[in-house]
Amino acid sequence: MEEQVDLVGNTFVDHYYHLFDNDRSSLASLYQPSSMLTFEGQKILGVDDISAKLNQLPFDQCRHIISTIDSQSSAGGIVVFVSGSLQLPEEEHHLRFSQMFHLIPTLQGSFFVQNDIFRLNYG
Amino acid sequence: MEEQVDLVGNTFVDHYYHLFDNDRSSLASLYQPSSMLTFEGQKILGVDDISAKLNQLPFDQCRHIISTIDSQSSAGGIVVFVSGSLQLPEEEHHLRFSQMFHLIPTLQGSFFVQNDIFRLNYG
Repeated sequence: MEEQVDLVGNTFVDHYYHLFDNDRSSLASLYQPSSMLTFEGQKILGVDDISAKLNQLPFDQCRHIISTIDSQSSAGGIVVFVSGSLQLPEEEHHLRFSQMFHLIPTLQGSFFVQNDIFRLNYG
Repeated sequence: MEEQVDLVGNTFVDHYYHLFDNDRSSLASLYQPSSMLTFEGQKILGVDDISAKLNQLPFDQCRHIISTIDSQSSAGGIVVFVSGSLQLPEEEHHLRFSQMFHLIPTLQGSFFVQNDIFRLNYG
């Protein structure tokens, strides 16, 4: 059971950051009207506003390098906790980040992102 | 609604780390048999084993300093994402950490920790 959870979490993380780094506008397909994103403390509700936020971030090119993925089954879904670094073309140093997702099954047998919280790690 | 969520998240975080730093064995009261903790990649199931793990950590004294708390309502509960630093008496530098909780309401009108994922932030 928990092995299946790890597989879903790892597969989701690969897919999510691949889209983020290569075809960011496609991330909208992973959210729904009930979804929430908190990005550096700013809370955004719903797929439309979340997609707009992600597409308006002040960088075009980026690359996420994943350090750790921890997944657990949770009430009606899977929680996924990611740590890694974000590489931007104009930045010499990588930016460390942590991000969590709560994935909920869809009627189609896939998952969508109900909760998404992103923070850069300073200090 | 989301203001209430922030209030629950902030109150929980204050309570959790106060117990951790002052009366760590009492943290068991916040978990249930279904709870999961992933601590630095080690997955632990159930209040008994979680409590044992927390009480066997290789330090007695510690102090958590909280930097950010992000909370969202989620399927049947609240997700809380925390960043901060951990101060140990024998360590000169603080250790940065991130931690997430999925809180589920109890029949008594309180919350318990269904999911808990902890990671130190390196690099």
